[in-house]
This record gives sequence, structure tokens and C-alpha cells, in this order.
Amino acid sequence: MKSPIRPLDDAARDMVRSILQDARFAALSFIDPDTGAPMVSRIALVEGPDRLPLSLISDLSHHSAALQKIPVCSLLIGEPGPKGDPLTHPRLSLQAKASFVRHTDVSHARLAQAFLTKQPKAKLYIGFADFALVQFTPLGAHLNGGFGKAYILGPEDLD
Amino acid sequence: MKSPIRPLDDAARDMVRSILQDARFAALSFIDPDTGAPMVSRIALVEGPDRLPLSLISDLSHHSAALQKIPVCSLLIGEPGPKGDPLTHPRLSLQAKASFVRHTDVSHARLAQAFLTKQPKAKLYIGFADFALVQFTPLGAHLNGGFGKAYILGPEDLD
Repeated sequence: MKSPIRPLDDAARDMVRSILQDARFAALSFIDPDTGAPMVSRIALVEGPDRLPLSLISDLSHHSAALQKIPVCSLLIGEPGPKGDPLTHPRLSLQAKASFVRHTDVSHARLAQAFLTKQPKAKLYIGFADFALVQFTPLGAHLNGGFGKAYILGPEDLD
Repeated sequence: MKSPIRPLDDAARDMVRSILQDARFAALSFIDPDTGAPMVSRIALVEGPDRLPLSLISDLSHHSAALQKIPVCSLLIGEPGPKGDPLTHPRLSLQAKASFVRHTDVSHARLAQAFLTKQPKAKLYIGFADFALVQFTPLGAHLNGGFGKAYILGPEDLD
């Protein structure tokens, strides 16, 4: 079977940078610790400091409890518009490790400021004790730039 | 901690029906059999016969090989538009089991017809030997109708 994976080039790197910079939300894929089954939720997502994807998550959510037990997860980033074939729209499947940043952590203020710059409406609830910032450290990624345009990226390609 | 889950009502059931009927694509959460890590890909998705979600997947894709080994997966369905807060847009996280339907299977013609009715452009490649239809049997779901509007559904709620 012919591999559909292409060598990584500057155009693909630019696509990755755009997808991460433009992100407003993502699909988070995680493991349910009780069953071992894969689950998926929509989360808010912005590009935070050090270009690490950053979310704001309620402790009441299913995925918060799950990520605290099993932090290895994936993010699908890059949303199609209302028109055209959604499968030709570029998207990034990012494998990552989630780290929770609580109000008591020294880095919280800086990350909260960065998050609010991109999602100002979150100021209504970012101060609630049961909302935590979550930073995602990339472990690797698959970029799909449309049919037949697939690339595999390592952590060094995502710095 | 107060549970955010509400009792299932007719308005929530209607929301689920709309999300499934309107689906054009979904985020598929699956397990990478080589690493055990959760992964996520965008796939085409329509409501097929018997109201089961139906996709068309290339054997060249990472998720095809994975689903053939570990068919338990999740689908995130219901996409926000370009405006407004994406986290207030209703979405369904559906836990499901994937079944592959090949060209040699007796049900292929009927399912292919149903798929093409909703995604006519797929006629260009639905006949390729390395494209299979994939039917998803629901095992349960979480409906998120926006902040504070969460519901849990069993398979009986998804008939």
C-alpha cells in the first residue's frame, strides 16, 4: 500500500503555525479512566505563551477528571467553514500531555492574561475556583492538508 | 460538587435528533493500538439507514487501521459557526462501536446509496477498493447544549 505521508516542507510548517494561531476551540480526545474507552469533548483553545496550546476547563466536566488521571490526550484543531467539502480543510491532530495550572500556581496570572487576550468573555468565569487553565505540551502531530496531503510532525517540528 | 447533569427531556431529545440529522462530519476519537494513546481525526459523517451514523474511510488513514483493531471509539458531532462563543453551540459526544462494510458485503450498496444522497461528491471515490463504509452503533452519549446544559444518554435514548 502506498504511503500517503509527504516529507515535511515549509508550506506544511506554515499551515501548522496558522492552524495553531487561529485556534479558538478544539476537539479533545481523552481516555475515560473508568472504562479505558476513548472519549471526545469540545474545549476552548488558544495559542498561549511559548506557543503552547492553552485551555480553560471546569472541574465539573468529564474531561477534567479524566485528564487529571490520564494526561496523555489528542487535540483536533482547524475548523472547516460552513461551505465546501469539510475534508479538504486543513487540520492538525496534535498528541499532547495536559498540565493543570491552578489559581495558586505562580504561572496562573501570566497564563490567564494570555488566555483572556484571545477569549475576553472568559473573564466572567476564569476566576472561579473550579476553573483551571490547562497547558498542552506537544508530543507529535499529524497534519492533514486535504486529500493526499498528510504529514507527520515530531515535537521538534512543533517548537 | 454539584452535578451539572440535567434529566433528559423532549427538548434535549430534539437537540440530539437535529445534531445527528445535520451532521456532515465529525471528530473521531480512537485508540492508537501501538501506543494505547487516544488519537483524533476528522471524518465525513452522515445519518445513514436506521439512523446510525455512517462514514466513508480510506484504508490509508491512520484511524482505519486503528478502528479495525479497536472498534470502540467516540464521535464529536455538532459544529459551531464562525461567530459567537463556540462553547455555547450544542454538540454530542457519542460513544460507539465501528463496523466496517466492504464492497463485498451485501449491505454495501444500500449504505453507499444512503451516503451518496447526503454527500454526492463522494461518488468520485466511494467505488475505490481501499474505501470502506463504516457504521457506528451507539453505546451512549453526552449532550452538551451549552454552559450548564449537560445530559447523559443511554443506547435506548439513541434509537
